[in-house]
Amino acid sequence: MEYLSMLPGPTNVPDRVMRAMLAPIINHRSDDFVRLYRDVVEKTRRVFRTEGDVVALSASGTGAVEAGVVNIVRKGDKVIVPVNGEFSGRLAQMIEWQGAETVRLETPPGANATFGQVREAFDNNPDAKAFYVVHNETSTGTMVNYLDRVKDLASRTGALYVVDSVSLLGGAPLPVDEWGIDVCMTGAQKAIAAPPGISPISVGPRAKKMMLADPPKTMYFNLPRYFKYYEESSHTPFTPALPLMYAFREALSMMLEEGLDDIYARHRACSEALYAGLGAVGLSPFAREEDRSVSIVALNYPEGLEDGPFRRTLAERFRVLVAGGFGDLKGKVFRVGCMGEVSAYHVMRTISAVSSTLAMMGFEADAGAGLAAAQEKLGSL
Amino acid sequence: MEYLSMLPGPTNVPDRVMRAMLAPIINHRSDDFVRLYRDVVEKTRRVFRTEGDVVALSASGTGAVEAGVVNIVRKGDKVIVPVNGEFSGRLAQMIEWQGAETVRLETPPGANATFGQVREAFDNNPDAKAFYVVHNETSTGTMVNYLDRVKDLASRTGALYVVDSVSLLGGAPLPVDEWGIDVCMTGAQKAIAAPPGISPISVGPRAKKMMLADPPKTMYFNLPRYFKYYEESSHTPFTPALPLMYAFREALSMMLEEGLDDIYARHRACSEALYAGLGAVGLSPFAREEDRSVSIVALNYPEGLEDGPFRRTLAERFRVLVAGGFGDLKGKVFRVGCMGEVSAYHVMRTISAVSSTLAMMGFEADAGAGLAAAQEKLGSL
Repeated sequence: MEYLSMLPGPTNVPDRVMRAMLAPIINHRSDDFVRLYRDVVEKTRRVFRTEGDVVALSASGTGAVEAGVVNIVRKGDKVIVPVNGEFSGRLAQMIEWQGAETVRLETPPGANATFGQVREAFDNNPDAKAFYVVHNETSTGTMVNYLDRVKDLASRTGALYVVDSVSLLGGAPLPVDEWGIDVCMTGAQKAIAAPPGISPISVGPRAKKMMLADPPKTMYFNLPRYFKYYEESSHTPFTPALPLMYAFREALSMMLEEGLDDIYARHRACSEALYAGLGAVGLSPFAREEDRSVSIVALNYPEGLEDGPFRRTLAERFRVLVAGGFGDLKGKVFRVGCMGEVSAYHVMRTISAVSSTLAMMGFEADAGAGLAAAQEKLGSL
Repeated sequence: MEYLSMLPGPTNVPDRVMRAMLAPIINHRSDDFVRLYRDVVEKTRRVFRTEGDVVALSASGTGAVEAGVVNIVRKGDKVIVPVNGEFSGRLAQMIEWQGAETVRLETPPGANATFGQVREAFDNNPDAKAFYVVHNETSTGTMVNYLDRVKDLASRTGALYVVDSVSLLGGAPLPVDEWGIDVCMTGAQKAIAAPPGISPISVGPRAKKMMLADPPKTMYFNLPRYFKYYEESSHTPFTPALPLMYAFREALSMMLEEGLDDIYARHRACSEALYAGLGAVGLSPFAREEDRSVSIVALNYPEGLEDGPFRRTLAERFRVLVAGGFGDLKGKVFRVGCMGEVSAYHVMRTISAVSSTLAMMGFEADAGAGLAAAQEKLGSL
């Protein structure tokens, strides 16, 4: 019996995408692979809304983020980076490991640095080589909602603009070229709804030039090597994870068939329904209202409700999977993924199952109010 | 219609292994994953014949090799490394990128450094921190056949002993603990016959201690981080490529069911049959006789035979896939993989198809002699 996966990734993967993995194993130095990989690159470009280079790495999202760091940041560089959770902390750590100085814009978990704080950081650090930002902090359920306005700040100082959108790209607007993003990373297993293991990164012309001038002294995430192989033969330098590449292509095709704007609207409506519905059930969101993510809904546990028994009951009795908290938030919050093929069914079943679990465990839960509030937000979905 | 893949990786993947990928996507922070991953680790240990730590990375073989370098080699270290092909060259490059000095034992492609040369290198460099060696050079079809005797050299000087067995482990004996190998890397898509994308690495106690004392300043291949997650919760630090992890486990199970010694014997017999058979057809092996690989059979093109048309005809008319040469050997050799589920059928069909292709292209080819010579080597297989 399958679970309804409402995880912050990996998400549910449509059958059509799963079945694509069964395509025969081919030579990754053949015309068959060239056709597959070119198609992957073209479709990824459309989902990223970029004309820049795209590389689909055979690695998890962290691998793509590391590629986005080691190909750009060098010893002695100064880099501005907002930090308010596990993944933005890791990003800052990776930048510092390169020997760079970070200007960390630290805010409490659940609240993002404001646009004013970011502008001030640019004003105070006109010598910063780059601005790195986590679009959507998976550990706390926050989303930065001013990425369209960073372009002007970056172009004033000439800083590179790099976005880690691992847990959101595809679920909310992030037109890479229009918003002036030089490098953008994501993972296949989040809003794209493919299995984990492929992580694409886009590289605009300015960043590419910089990478080619000073390639990193590492092999697997060496992007100039990927550019060279792609330009010479449309191959990847290292054996790609073929079944996952087929699945990734299928997931991209499904996205382009549905239409990106419709997908964004669906994610928006489902997340609003989850916030409203679970709120009416009696739970409070962890993140500050203006910073709430559309792909990850983090909720505070009521006093006395334990993480382990709650999630175990939800999984065993209702076969709905949600995630616990990460790092300091372990035991304090649970997180509901709202990504990929998420629909009204996913939302309503989750609210119903969460209310029922709360009730079984002796907590007040107004299922009727929750479902009604959710239905209102779902509209015609 | 499917191809018979006789590539030097990825190899044919048994249906049972392919179908394992369709297992439902699960939470990689759940008990379900713990059961899966522990099983993967235990079975990998048995295939590596080690009691040491094992990590299954979600990356290609190059990723595992890079992990084997960046977790050990530091600026100023001296490292002995035989070099005679594309992959040993890459290995030396990765070591040098760490700021280490390499003692490169360079030999011509197709011939390995002798054991005497290796012993001399140890004698002349008692201060070397490590000896890194490519077990099986995929680009030329050579295999080092004295890895059982390096232990004594390494223990005399205290050097770490690291083996890149990406294209062989599982196809020939390499008992990691018995042979005193501190770190060993391979890939799923070679002799293990799983799809590409998972690459295991084993780490013995001495190497582990060294890694923990000075973790690398990189994220995705940071082995101390993998050790910590495994010890605390049997998780991986980053989202694993779940479908490939299921397939990898299935492939390991099939290996243990067949028995490792039987698998080694099968690889040995099939490769001897390919060398004898293709030799009798009229082709000459590229590698020196004593250094020939049991998993990759590289053959010289006869004067005037072009790589492109030959491999295209073989693929289009007979649906048999072989690989071209790599780097300097492009157009000069073709390479036949002899790995994974390779059997008498694979051998005989390949010899038949190669002979027929040669004949179609106007070259002399004695199919009868080739098949008879192969049959003799196959024995009861």
